[in-house]
Amino acid sequence: MVTSAPEASHASRPPAGGRLLAAVDIGGTKIAGAVLDAGGTVLHRAQRPTPPGGGPEDVFTAVREVLEQLAALPQWGRVSSLGIASAGPVDIARGLVSPVNIPGWRGFPLVDRVRELPQAAGLPVVLCGDAVAMTAAEHRLGAARGCRDALCMVVSTGVGAGLVMDGAVRNGPTGNAGHLGHITVDLLGDPCPCGARGCVEQLASGTSLTRRALQNGWRPAGEPDGAALAADARAGDAIALASFDTSARALAAAVAAVATLVEIEVAVIGGGVAEAHDVLFPPLRRHLASYAVLPFAAGVRIEVAALRADAGLIGAALIASDLQPAGAAC
Amino acid sequence: MVTSAPEASHASRPPAGGRLLAAVDIGGTKIAGAVLDAGGTVLHRAQRPTPPGGGPEDVFTAVREVLEQLAALPQWGRVSSLGIASAGPVDIARGLVSPVNIPGWRGFPLVDRVRELPQAAGLPVVLCGDAVAMTAAEHRLGAARGCRDALCMVVSTGVGAGLVMDGAVRNGPTGNAGHLGHITVDLLGDPCPCGARGCVEQLASGTSLTRRALQNGWRPAGEPDGAALAADARAGDAIALASFDTSARALAAAVAAVATLVEIEVAVIGGGVAEAHDVLFPPLRRHLASYAVLPFAAGVRIEVAALRADAGLIGAALIASDLQPAGAAC
Repeated sequence: MVTSAPEASHASRPPAGGRLLAAVDIGGTKIAGAVLDAGGTVLHRAQRPTPPGGGPEDVFTAVREVLEQLAALPQWGRVSSLGIASAGPVDIARGLVSPVNIPGWRGFPLVDRVRELPQAAGLPVVLCGDAVAMTAAEHRLGAARGCRDALCMVVSTGVGAGLVMDGAVRNGPTGNAGHLGHITVDLLGDPCPCGARGCVEQLASGTSLTRRALQNGWRPAGEPDGAALAADARAGDAIALASFDTSARALAAAVAAVATLVEIEVAVIGGGVAEAHDVLFPPLRRHLASYAVLPFAAGVRIEVAALRADAGLIGAALIASDLQPAGAAC
Repeated sequence: MVTSAPEASHASRPPAGGRLLAAVDIGGTKIAGAVLDAGGTVLHRAQRPTPPGGGPEDVFTAVREVLEQLAALPQWGRVSSLGIASAGPVDIARGLVSPVNIPGWRGFPLVDRVRELPQAAGLPVVLCGDAVAMTAAEHRLGAARGCRDALCMVVSTGVGAGLVMDGAVRNGPTGNAGHLGHITVDLLGDPCPCGARGCVEQLASGTSLTRRALQNGWRPAGEPDGAALAADARAGDAIALASFDTSARALAAAVAAVATLVEIEVAVIGGGVAEAHDVLFPPLRRHLASYAVLPFAAGVRIEVAALRADAGLIGAALIASDLQPAGAAC
């Protein structure tokens, strides 16, 4: 079902008849779509669950249905570009996606398949990684607005990230720049499912945060999830606090590495774990002060993301729009 | 004494009367200067030892003397720009240098002081970090030529590096981008003199390479230096091989982090330790295959630097020249 979005606060409604943007955000749990105004405000949404264990065509059917719903809107004719954010890895040069958490898609030719849909006829279709999309959204409208050099991260089930350099989001040749979750911060650490060892994601993701606490004897009253762990940490539970501290240390080393390697002014952190920023950020800032020590890196700030679940849609829409000639489709 | 350089092979001599470039490269051991042709070939050199333990004016006197010698050349009037490469950290925005290995200079206003010299009258003076300069040289004339995205490293007493992104050398806002030697790859590792812990430099520099071997019982026949350690590794000495393996592992994690974070096609490695690339590169490539595993990062190549001691001079000259309007001073 297509739903109208509540009025968002960060952009005004365009004049009637103005240019609109469309976007799809593909993740392991859901496939979301939206029509947005030219400023990135979500006007209408559509959504399907990602078929669990589905084959390539099952997953693509969900994408098609989301686009069909949006294209049934009377405003669809004013849409001038279609951005697609996808869980990674992606290959933007060839239009392929191989999301780790969608096993049915390996090297799936998403861009070509979407271009063949009647709903996309005449529309430029632009693919980007979902963390790159989130970064574009935070840079344009969120906590990294106005920054020349920034890191934007999503810390939830996994750890994803994107980079802003010299005022522009860095895609890298294949669209995978910013894969901070899979840099090694513990040289001889445990093997990571990615194939390397001691990766940031392995130490800092929400999954590892609660798993580590459980292994160390945490016994929550209800569901053993991140929200319960954060609540126990707020209440002073030593095991919960220690697990947040370990995640914070790994994130601090990762942020320090980025600040030292490319120079950034801010690290913006969103995602489920960042909802507990009152618990996460104090140890994160303390550890960061011990890892980001060179003068040009020591000043890097930590900020909570301003845009939540819509960041991927907004960023994909803006990236696709930016690649079109100014006003071409007004 | 100003000496004429042997003919270099990577560029032809310019026509008589063509535009020339000048550069100074400031390190902890020596201060080198050169006049180069517009293609980056060194034509004339001058050099002074860096005054050990000298105050700020002692060190600057050596810079001034190098420039005076070069300016006495009849060709000096054709020089159109002056590039300065300095050991870091630097602050290119404010023209200040604070080289770790030149204690007399902390926040020294090098650019302003050089601009005040009569030899620099009318010349644009451009400051860059020495690893950024080396990167520019390798990108333009060396092992990273033609690459869109690359990492260039110097592994010697310390570990320095620079980045090429989208075909251009990344300075970062203060000129310190690429400080790969001080990213943490061992989260709970030993404290590093920089203030952090588990840094790449601490594990992989030439200094640590020989120190670790000595601690583990290596007994060289002659001087306990990197060349002797490499010779013993070639001869199959287990302690020497193990020390190279530890350095190689840390370098591999660092190269993998860069490939994963920003996407690069090649890592070019120069400096004293890279002279032993026949010993260093096999374990480096083996470890790299275990740390750089995501598809977009797994293909990163390792190459030995093509330019040696002159890379800093060449890069500084080219960076300064690139910032001037084309042909402005011909």
